[in-house]
Amino acid sequence: MTAEPQVDVRAMAVACRDASRAFAALDGAAKNRILARIAELLPQREAAILAANQRDLTAAREKGLSGAMVDRLALTPQRLRDIAEAVLEVAAQADPVGEVTRMWRRPNGLLVGRQRIPLGVIAMIYESRPNVTVDAAALCLKAGNAVILRGGSEAFASNTALASVLQEALAAEGAPAAAVSLIATTDRAAMNALLALDDLVDLAIPRGGEGLIRFVNQHSAIPVIKHYKGVCHLYVDAAAEPDTALRLLLDGKTSRPGVCNALETMLVHRAAAPRFMPAATAALDRKDVEIRGCEATRAYAPQALAATDEDYAAEFLDLTIAVKIVDRYEDAIAHIQRFGSDHTEIIATEDYRTAQRFLREVNSSVVLVNASSRFSDGGQLGLGAEIGISTTKLHAFGPMGLTALTTEKFIVYGEGQVRHPSAVE
Amino acid sequence: MTAEPQVDVRAMAVACRDASRAFAALDGAAKNRILARIAELLPQREAAILAANQRDLTAAREKGLSGAMVDRLALTPQRLRDIAEAVLEVAAQADPVGEVTRMWRRPNGLLVGRQRIPLGVIAMIYESRPNVTVDAAALCLKAGNAVILRGGSEAFASNTALASVLQEALAAEGAPAAAVSLIATTDRAAMNALLALDDLVDLAIPRGGEGLIRFVNQHSAIPVIKHYKGVCHLYVDAAAEPDTALRLLLDGKTSRPGVCNALETMLVHRAAAPRFMPAATAALDRKDVEIRGCEATRAYAPQALAATDEDYAAEFLDLTIAVKIVDRYEDAIAHIQRFGSDHTEIIATEDYRTAQRFLREVNSSVVLVNASSRFSDGGQLGLGAEIGISTTKLHAFGPMGLTALTTEKFIVYGEGQVRHPSAVE
Repeated sequence: MTAEPQVDVRAMAVACRDASRAFAALDGAAKNRILARIAELLPQREAAILAANQRDLTAAREKGLSGAMVDRLALTPQRLRDIAEAVLEVAAQADPVGEVTRMWRRPNGLLVGRQRIPLGVIAMIYESRPNVTVDAAALCLKAGNAVILRGGSEAFASNTALASVLQEALAAEGAPAAAVSLIATTDRAAMNALLALDDLVDLAIPRGGEGLIRFVNQHSAIPVIKHYKGVCHLYVDAAAEPDTALRLLLDGKTSRPGVCNALETMLVHRAAAPRFMPAATAALDRKDVEIRGCEATRAYAPQALAATDEDYAAEFLDLTIAVKIVDRYEDAIAHIQRFGSDHTEIIATEDYRTAQRFLREVNSSVVLVNASSRFSDGGQLGLGAEIGISTTKLHAFGPMGLTALTTEKFIVYGEGQVRHPSAVE
Repeated sequence: MTAEPQVDVRAMAVACRDASRAFAALDGAAKNRILARIAELLPQREAAILAANQRDLTAAREKGLSGAMVDRLALTPQRLRDIAEAVLEVAAQADPVGEVTRMWRRPNGLLVGRQRIPLGVIAMIYESRPNVTVDAAALCLKAGNAVILRGGSEAFASNTALASVLQEALAAEGAPAAAVSLIATTDRAAMNALLALDDLVDLAIPRGGEGLIRFVNQHSAIPVIKHYKGVCHLYVDAAAEPDTALRLLLDGKTSRPGVCNALETMLVHRAAAPRFMPAATAALDRKDVEIRGCEATRAYAPQALAATDEDYAAEFLDLTIAVKIVDRYEDAIAHIQRFGSDHTEIIATEDYRTAQRFLREVNSSVVLVNASSRFSDGGQLGLGAEIGISTTKLHAFGPMGLTALTTEKFIVYGEGQVRHPSAVE
């Protein structure tokens, strides 16, 4: 914490803050011109970007990184075109800035409104995927914010090359290049210096493993949007339609087990078990899903291991599922409260009142009736591109789209009103 | 930081978190019955409350606290009735919980909505006024939250007596008493222990001096809503109507100089000065307001001291005002960006385009045209009772009413939709 960072992070943040003020005043058309320019320049600068990426890939292989990690790091002409395409999709979204979300008249005639404005300066702290450099910057810029990027060391050369294209696009459109600032070092001291700048930076968004997120939260004086884990539950109610429940189970568990909105635990009402569990365990078996179950579950799945509390708390991110048969609806709710991560929970039921009750009583960020957990995603829910998912409640809860990168000010139209007329006599 | 707190803060927070879950499920009528019971019990327990308050007052006088501080601490039968009345006003407000703020249908038929839910557990950390104990608890409970109260040491006996009345009311209505938990010690170690509990507490709201707020922000793993200072500006535009500008000046500066929405700096366009400054300086003089001015200002107010940068950055909270005459609108904006606190800014102008431009370009939490800074207040803006004012942008910006004590979850009504039909075959 006392080591001197190798770059002057404060000076960089001051320049970024100044740029954010100019940027906040841009209208939607100007921001879209910048995004279009970014999308245009990325393929034009392909040679330089891929050369930088090669340096990262060579270093990664020398360090013995796993094939999966090297793949996440790799850029190709096609991936660059995809990244550019994603920037155009961000540009195509509605501009959240300027929207007056509500306006009302006070008894004294004041017209009071709440209007969306950019947050200001956002610090993105992320691990090795270089596409985040462009995706996150595009979303921040579209919402009128400046952004400080601090990527992982494995992608350092790639991120530097991508950030310079972003800055080239800003300059080409007459916008301040400092609106996208990359911390040109990956030393810890620079990150700590950044996280102390609560007078200049409005929000920190860490994206990566739980260790990174906890580190940022621990050391940050800046507000942090956190995404810990997704221990998503499917509750198969007594009144569930078995085929529907089975579809939700298989889509939730097997369509992409490594993501945070995959199912991790299934709770089955005892009354539903006889007509649901035999088909469910057979289907899971067919899909090579390992079951960790309670005693009652294991009567249906003799091959299953006995589930421990650790299993019920686990985010497997793999073809493994914890299963528990419960006596009552209330036991399912209590289980979710005890082991859940406030991320995403689903009920399968055909009973109107139970559906409404579940929606009312479960306060996770996304609560679904008869729909797959895999819809817990900004794009799937209709928010457009997603900057992240918050599992804590302040500011944003659940998938975050562009509006989560804004706040609201009060605007007041008056005609000379004062609060204490006697004070002005 | 390493000292052991005298009470088991984690155990208390666990009980409060458990209570928050029961509380979140209460409907509006049940919450209002609790608030009505609180209002009813406060005068009934007057003797015990005032006796406890006497102990605090005696200790305060022995410690040599100033008369103003002792007055802030003092409870009387009338003040108790006022506190009870304020609780009934909170009860009369609309319940923010359950409101579906938006709902839309996705192309696949999913009906997706955003619904307000309580934040969960809120930690209120405040200095000596005992009325905050009841006010803050009432607002938190109305929004479906549980609250952990940590008041100042000077009001310890009073706060303990008031909290026990709150808990008595909860129990009398069959609600968990731990929904209002008072940290029964004022030692620093207990506060530090509380601020580490980001797995149990959803939000910390410090209310008091800047030192307290900075301490809480520095030491908290829990998200913090911060209110630093209010350096509010009045910009008197070239097109200002002089009488209107004078009214805004006098109401803003003199109606209650010690509050955060009082004016601290006035910026006057050079073109408005000749017809505005003579009357303004005379009126300020009549109201005993001391002027710290730029050179051009002092041509109109020879008695004024020369303003320093410290004056322009100051929150005087007193009958003192900094004044600067500017050549252009842009200079006023630059001054506000340099010295402002993002709290409240006002323009006096009769020019339509300048008014719209100021509303668009100034991103303080409250921006007013031709209306007094003293309206920058939850009650005055129509939010109902105010839990605080945020000068930082995350989650809430500006005056905070009940909705700032809630967040929004996503609710999804489905009919068996899955994301990857091939996964369920």
